[in-house]
Parts: sequence; C-alpha cells; structure tokens
Amino acid sequence: MRQSKFFMPTLKEVPADAEAVSHQLMLRGGYVRQVTAGVYSYLPLANLVLTKISNIVREEMAKIDAPEMLMPIFLPASLWQESGRYESYGPNLFKLVDRHERPSILGPTHEETFTEIVAEELRSYKKMPLTLYQIQTKFRDENRPRFGLLRGREFIMLDAYSFAANEEQLDVQYQEVGQAFQNVFDRVGLKTMAIIADAGAMGGSDSTEYQAPAAVGEDTIAYTAGGYAANIEMAKSIDSLEVTTEEPKEIEKVHTPGIKTITALAEFMAVPNTKIVKSVLYRADDKLVLVLIRGDKQINEVKLTNIIDANELHVATDAEVVELTGIMPGGIGPVNATFADMVIADETIEHLTNFVVGANETDYQLANVNLGRDFFVDQFYDVKLAEEGELDPIGHEPLKFTRGIEIGHIFKLGTRYTKDFHANFLDENGKEQPVIMGSYGIGISRLLSAIIEQNYTERGIAWPKTVAPFEVHLIQMKMNDADQTKVANDLYQSLSDKYDVLYDERNERAGVKFADADLVGAPVRVIIGKKASEGIIEVKHPGEQDSTEVKLTELENYINSEIG
Amino acid sequence: MRQSKFFMPTLKEVPADAEAVSHQLMLRGGYVRQVTAGVYSYLPLANLVLTKISNIVREEMAKIDAPEMLMPIFLPASLWQESGRYESYGPNLFKLVDRHERPSILGPTHEETFTEIVAEELRSYKKMPLTLYQIQTKFRDENRPRFGLLRGREFIMLDAYSFAANEEQLDVQYQEVGQAFQNVFDRVGLKTMAIIADAGAMGGSDSTEYQAPAAVGEDTIAYTAGGYAANIEMAKSIDSLEVTTEEPKEIEKVHTPGIKTITALAEFMAVPNTKIVKSVLYRADDKLVLVLIRGDKQINEVKLTNIIDANELHVATDAEVVELTGIMPGGIGPVNATFADMVIADETIEHLTNFVVGANETDYQLANVNLGRDFFVDQFYDVKLAEEGELDPIGHEPLKFTRGIEIGHIFKLGTRYTKDFHANFLDENGKEQPVIMGSYGIGISRLLSAIIEQNYTERGIAWPKTVAPFEVHLIQMKMNDADQTKVANDLYQSLSDKYDVLYDERNERAGVKFADADLVGAPVRVIIGKKASEGIIEVKHPGEQDSTEVKLTELENYINSEIG
Repeated sequence: MRQSKFFMPTLKEVPADAEAVSHQLMLRGGYVRQVTAGVYSYLPLANLVLTKISNIVREEMAKIDAPEMLMPIFLPASLWQESGRYESYGPNLFKLVDRHERPSILGPTHEETFTEIVAEELRSYKKMPLTLYQIQTKFRDENRPRFGLLRGREFIMLDAYSFAANEEQLDVQYQEVGQAFQNVFDRVGLKTMAIIADAGAMGGSDSTEYQAPAAVGEDTIAYTAGGYAANIEMAKSIDSLEVTTEEPKEIEKVHTPGIKTITALAEFMAVPNTKIVKSVLYRADDKLVLVLIRGDKQINEVKLTNIIDANELHVATDAEVVELTGIMPGGIGPVNATFADMVIADETIEHLTNFVVGANETDYQLANVNLGRDFFVDQFYDVKLAEEGELDPIGHEPLKFTRGIEIGHIFKLGTRYTKDFHANFLDENGKEQPVIMGSYGIGISRLLSAIIEQNYTERGIAWPKTVAPFEVHLIQMKMNDADQTKVANDLYQSLSDKYDVLYDERNERAGVKFADADLVGAPVRVIIGKKASEGIIEVKHPGEQDSTEVKLTELENYINSEIG
Repeated sequence: MRQSKFFMPTLKEVPADAEAVSHQLMLRGGYVRQVTAGVYSYLPLANLVLTKISNIVREEMAKIDAPEMLMPIFLPASLWQESGRYESYGPNLFKLVDRHERPSILGPTHEETFTEIVAEELRSYKKMPLTLYQIQTKFRDENRPRFGLLRGREFIMLDAYSFAANEEQLDVQYQEVGQAFQNVFDRVGLKTMAIIADAGAMGGSDSTEYQAPAAVGEDTIAYTAGGYAANIEMAKSIDSLEVTTEEPKEIEKVHTPGIKTITALAEFMAVPNTKIVKSVLYRADDKLVLVLIRGDKQINEVKLTNIIDANELHVATDAEVVELTGIMPGGIGPVNATFADMVIADETIEHLTNFVVGANETDYQLANVNLGRDFFVDQFYDVKLAEEGELDPIGHEPLKFTRGIEIGHIFKLGTRYTKDFHANFLDENGKEQPVIMGSYGIGISRLLSAIIEQNYTERGIAWPKTVAPFEVHLIQMKMNDADQTKVANDLYQSLSDKYDVLYDERNERAGVKFADADLVGAPVRVIIGKKASEGIIEVKHPGEQDSTEVKLTELENYINSEIG
C-alpha cells in the first residue's frame, strides 16, 4: 500500500477521557474513532489487525473441525422469552420494535439462536459431537462504556457453541476449544493466564477465563507461583486464623453510641476485629438476606450471588435498613433477626467464641455471643474476598494479585438452553435426552486493545509480527531524490510479493514520517536515505532508539530472519 | 472438511412462502434459516460462499488502492439529523433508544458516518482523491421482506465512498469503482447489465445500476441490441405517434354516465384512446398534483417523483378525489382545475388537437379541447413508462424488456453530504470548497441469491468455481470397503493441499449422498465406488445426468483443467 493512498488520520491531542494507553494510541494513530459512547469506527489500520486476528482464529477453529456460520444481529424477542433471558438479562440488552411493533433485540450473545437452529437437526446421537462458531458483531448497552475497545457497546466476538450426546464428549470439546483459544492467544503474541472463573451468569458449571495481564484490566487475578489462578470473584479463601478455645461467657448488652465502623467498635470494646462478627443486610431479588462474616474480612458479592442463586443483589442502603428493620445500621445482628428471610454465614465465624454482634437495637451491641446458644446457623459458606498474601486453597502458597483483561471465556453449559428449546436426541438405547452444550467466546475487538496494552513503546506500538497491520514499513526520506526513489520502488515491488508492505512516499518531513511509523508499529522499518545510492539502507525495530545500516543485498535475509 | 463434522441441515419440504428458486434451494440445502421475517442465519455452506465473494471484492478494491474500514451499525440519531435523513428516510429506518433514552438508529447506509470521519482529515486538496470502503451488515425495515436474501431486513453490503477535490477526480473514481464492480461480477460468474438508474433517492446526479438478469428480479430493464439499457424507472420514452394537424373545433360537453375506463370512454365517444388525455391526481408531500398524459400511456411514478422532487407520493384514492375536488374520479380534468397546486403534462399531449378531457363535473367529459385555448401548460415532461417495442431514445431501436436483480449501484453524490457536514478543503488557490463525493454499493448477501438464480440445475446448484463452497466433493460409496477408504483418504489428503475439499465419509445410502451433493454443487464431484480397487473413479459436473470414469492417475489433470 502506498501511504499517500492510505487513510490514517493521526491526532496530536487525544481526548482527556481516553484513560487507557491502548485507547490513546489507537486515537493518535488513526486506528479508531468514537461515533457515540462505546461505539467505534475501525479505520484501515485497526481493520487490518482485526482481519489478521480473525484469520488466526479461523485457522485454529478449522483445526478442531468447527464449521463457521454467521447469525443475525437482529433477533425476535420471542427467542429470548423462550429462555427467560428477555426479562432476566437486564438493562444491557438493547430492545427495540420494528415497523409492525414486534418486540426485538440486538444479540449480546447467541446461545438461543444456535440452540434453536440445531434443535431440529441433532435428533440422533450419531450427529454429535458438533462444534459451531461465528465471528460477529455484538451489542451490550453498558452503563459505563470505557477504555476504548475494552468495554464497548458494539464489539466483535468469536462465539462458539458445542453440542454433545454425553458428558465425555463435552469434556473433549471443552478441552479442544480451550486449546484452540490458547493457540490463538499465543499466536497473536499475548501473554495470558487461564484462570478459574464465575460460570454463574451463563447458568453453567465449569468455566475458565483467559486473562491478559495488564495494568488497565478491570479484573483482579489471584495466583501463585505453583500454578493456582482464579478470578478474585471466584478465588476460594481459606481461613488461616488460629482459633483459641474459650469457655462461653455470659452474654452482655453494651451501649455503643455513635460507633459506626468495625475499627471504632474494636477500639471501644477493646477486642480485636477478629472477635467481631459483621452483619450486612442485602436485598436479593425479593428477599432480605443477612450475611455474617468476621470483622477483618470483606464480602464477595459474586460468591454471595451464586450461593443464593440471585438474579439481582445489592447491599441495603442505610435508609433501607432503617425502613426494613427499624434499627439504625450498625445495630443489626443475628440474634432474633426476625426481619431476615435468610441468614448466610461465612466459614470464618464457625469456630468463634465470645464474639461481638449488633443487638438489633440502635446503638447497642451484644458481647460474648456464641453460636448454637444465642443463634443458629445451618450451614457455613465461603462468602469472603480472598486477600493478597493469604494461602491458596490447593497448594497453600501465598496468593499474589495482578490486574487482567478478560479476552476469552469457556463454559460448560450443560442443558440450560437445550431444555428450554426441546433440543432432544435419541441416544444409543433409543432414549430421548437433552443435548449437552458448551459455550465459548473470544473478544476479537478487545484483543486489539489487549495486544497494545502488552506491546506499547515510549512512542507508539510494537505489533507482534503475526497481527501487525503492515509487516514492513518502507520509508523514503527524500521524494525528489532519484536514487532513493529507484531503491524504494524496487523494494516495494519485490517485498510486496511476500509481505504486507506500507510505502511512505509522501512529501512529508522526516519527523512526521517517523512519528507516523511509530504508530503504525511494523516489526520491520526500512529507511531509504542518503546512502541509497551506495546500496545501503537502514532498518529499525519499533521501540528501538537507533536504526542500523544494512546492505541492500542483505536486506531480504534480514527481513526473513525477523518475520519470515 | 469431513462431511460428518460439517453442519448442513437439509430439508425435504420447503415452506410454501419460499417463492424464489434461490430461496428454496438455500433452505433445502441447509445454506440459510430464517430467524424472523427478512432476517437469516447463514449456515456453513452460505458462509463459505459469502467469504469467497467478500475476498474477491477485497482483491478488486485493493487493485484500485481503496483501504478497507469497518463502521458501526449502531449510530446516534444526531448523525442522521445533520443530513436530514433521520426524518426523510421513512419507515425503513430502524429507530431505537439506548438505556439513557438517547435516540439511535441501525445504519441502512453510511454516507453520514464516512463523511463525518473524513471531514476532519481532508483539509487540503493534496489528501485527495481518496476512496474508502467496508463490507458490513446493514438494516432496512422493509415492509414486505421476501425472496429470501433478495429483499431482507438485515443484509451484508459492500459500501464504498469516494472523496474528490474536483469533478475530474470524481469521474475517474466513478469509472474505477465501476470497473472494480464489473470485475467482481465477472469473477463470481454472474451475467450482468450496467444500466441507467435513478439517482434521485441518494440526492445525486449520475448513477449506474448493475443488474443480474433473472426471472425473479424485481426490476424491469429496458434494453436494445445496440447497447441501450435502463431501469424502466428511468428509461426515457420518446413518442412515436404521428400527429395529424387539424383545425380546432368548438368545445363540447358530453354526458358520459357510468363510464369508468379509457377503453370504455374511447368506445362511447368513438375516438381512439390517443385522442383522450388522462388526468390523474397525485398527493405529493403536502401538494396536489394533476398529471396529464395521453390515453394510451401509463404514468412512471419514479420520473414524476424526480420531476417534482417529492419525498413521498401516491395516487389519490377515489375517496380522496371526491373529498378534495367534489367530483367523482373520471370527471376531473385540466380545464379550470382550481383544486390542483401543480399541473404536470407529459410530452405526448403537446401536439394533440381536439382531444377529450374530464369536465371537472361528475359523469361529464369535454370533447374538442385544445391546448393554449382551453387551458395552459408551461412545460412538458417525459413522465411516462416506456413500453416494450417502442424505440429507445438514443439508437432508435425497439426496446426489449427483461427482469433483473439489482446487485450493485454507483452514484455521483456531489456535495449532498459534505455540505451538511462542513467537509471543506483548501484547493490549489487556497480557496475553501466542499469535498465532492461518490457512493457505491454491492449487495454481498444478495449476490448469493443472484448467483443461484443464474446457476441452478434440475436438482440443485451448479456453483461457479470461484465461489463454490467446496471446489471438490469426494464421495465414498461404501464406508466398509477398505479399497475405497484407502483411495478416498489418499485423495482427501492430496487434494486438500490445493483445493477446498468436502469428503463425504458418512454411513449414508448412495441416494442421500448424491442428493446432498446436488445441493452442495461443487464444480467437481469425485465418486469413489466399485472400481476403486482397479484405480478407476468417476467424475461428474453438477447438473450432468451421468458420471464419467477416470483413471486415478489422470484425476489431478482433470481437476486442474476444470478448476485449476
């Protein structure tokens, strides 16, 4: 491509609200432009990278014999009413009506669409295993779209769906797609972690997330050197506190006027915060849930949501607590907690004795409270946030935390959707069974950002050679120099047969050309300058300070060794 | 691809409402499934063809140095308010609001989006000429979606936009893109006609439509052996009637009770229908327009819309005529037509004398009416439908009619959009000018149907080799025959390096395999049967009745000669 014909509208200034480095670089380099909040135009540079990523995905999915399809974006509401998600999906679902007032949606994911299509066909176990996929534009009406392509409202995804006649087939499919995904991430040049993830939202069981570690990531990953890795949302937390046995003392009511925090209460009562049980009231769907946890721990709302299988959950506001219990927040507790529909106790309180809880009276606490005597708990759960430094639940090594960008996710769905769509088959014994599904996704447009977040330089981008918009960037320094023009043209001709070449033949200053080249980020930059007449040109890696002289005769070898 | 891993859900029965052959074949062959009216899932076979078509398009657009981009589907209403199309586009525009109640649309075309993006960048004549394009999913809420992919509500288009500093550059771009389009149509195996088209709806001037002649086509093309070709909507009609000069006679009012048609009136008045002037009342936006045309001719509403530059136009119903004029239809006419805001007269009435018109009184006509004496017309237009057999306006050869599918369209837009978006540049003299645009489109998903409409056989599809989902279809007759298995496996291995091969290794009867192969429509079908052990297999073209024996050693030469 001749650069004068290319369209790469660079910016000197980036909008102040572009926080992520990848977002800033893609705006500066003319990769993307925002059309409306969370909705972007992919300009030629971004489109080239997206195409290369998609082609790598296609190659890896072909290796596992998964045919590609393309489903529609515009879907009838009835399809999602059948699965119940038309109501339960929440405000991220774009809803609209057509000219005949028929309710419709823009697909945020396609479990229903795929399930409905295969339901008619997979009538016998002989038709399975089957894995299908698409690369398609999806819509989620995020409340706060941000970080450029990392959290958009219109985005490109690969979504794959597997159909199996038994759990063994599903296991194989889950493993195969997982390996294909890992191959994709390796090939596009991303460092990734495969971690334990929350499968709850998809209604499935097993689930693995692929995370690209990066400072801008919205997820926290808890991991150890020994190989444990989980999303903080799902990281099991084992209690490491040594419990000393004490004789139960007599319960005592204490006036604690104006005390609002655990720290203040611990000081006032002269006890460690590990002897206080926090009581937090949640509204979960139409129920009031009282959660009990040791004073030094925090509640993990994802775990809580999964334990009580809630669609929607939030902590009761101070005003709600007063309205629902008649008690000021801080005063509520588990003893005679008649206002609660359900009590969930964290494992950390199971072996406590003589602890402090709210007295269910404003500004009063109870001291020396004991389980089994003063109140009862049927079951204890892990409902707490894991903390950096605590021991992981498997290898018992100290947890480290890092930020990550979720770039892929694989789920065992089971029969969550096939039951709704009556996708049944006859097994070997002629018995009707529901098809067993898996669901798999890669955020294709998000990969673009993630790759930049892991591969930016001081002045631009250093694209991995597999996804670089151009592999070779030829830069002619002086357009009115006949020697340079001849060398540049010859190189453009010969290299274009083998590589994606961008040839900067614009009448621009060297500074402009180099600054643009930093943003194009080609793995090999070839500068045709003063010594062209002597058969010498310069080469440069993105991010390197200085270029290196190379003889023209040696250039092809050099390029082959770099990107061949 | 092994066919047992492929997904091709064939149907024995097709829905009765699938009228078009292409629609029937794509349903029967498992190419597509309808998700809701005019919205289809592309299953693997269709996706393979779409990918091949798109890649051909990309190659041809690369030849004219047009970079590819990808614009969003979801657009803010404000973008279309700026061009005025948010109001004027009509009910085909999908409108919706997001969670913050911001009005938005789904893009049916992208003039606004491209113009806004380039407006910031094309500030100097040096940045032009520039041509950009995308292959993207578009939405039009058609009132009556039909014929499968031929008229859908969600469909895939190539849309290209050119930006020029002067008319000469636009002329070159228009010609270049037109040639690229023609190359695409030739390469995908379509017979096409480039015809004069209506540019009105896009607000432009010059316009050419690419039509694929096919019986199911919704357009009528008027053409001659000498090379004239126009959409009937735009085909200029020249009057071939010899006019005899007569002395004007005295006007006469005639009672014509119950006469409702031109034919009946001609008989009653004992005059030829060429001596009657039809008066038809139209509502055009907020105006009443009376159209006058000779009794033997029909009104062309596209021409009429363009003449009066109306957004919306329809013939007044009988009830509306009575309400607006107080006269029963048939009685209205041009003499003292005070009810009409505007009178449009066809060229056919310019030289008539002593003709019949409605008397503006129910059940009365005026005979011996004459122009310039009884009523006045400022200007005469060509507002009539051309008819088969009449002479074309250029070579004066008799017009033939054929049906066509519109598969592409190129427009000279001029400054229709760049003025709205203040897309101005400084010319060589430092003077600010609006950028001059062109707009170009190919219906990618529609091509799929059009190719089938021109290439179906008695039993299936005969795909052109360039776009066939598979180039070679290997069919093993008996799966438990070791010789056949060895030959088939060897061929599958060796041919897959060079061609897209589908290998039917299913345990199915010959009849099932052949019926499916007719629907796959690969240009080369290789049947591995009884004589495999002797090194003999059979080959067959789609649509041929019988297969031909070929020696295994000669197969590669045969395939090369067919699709190499």
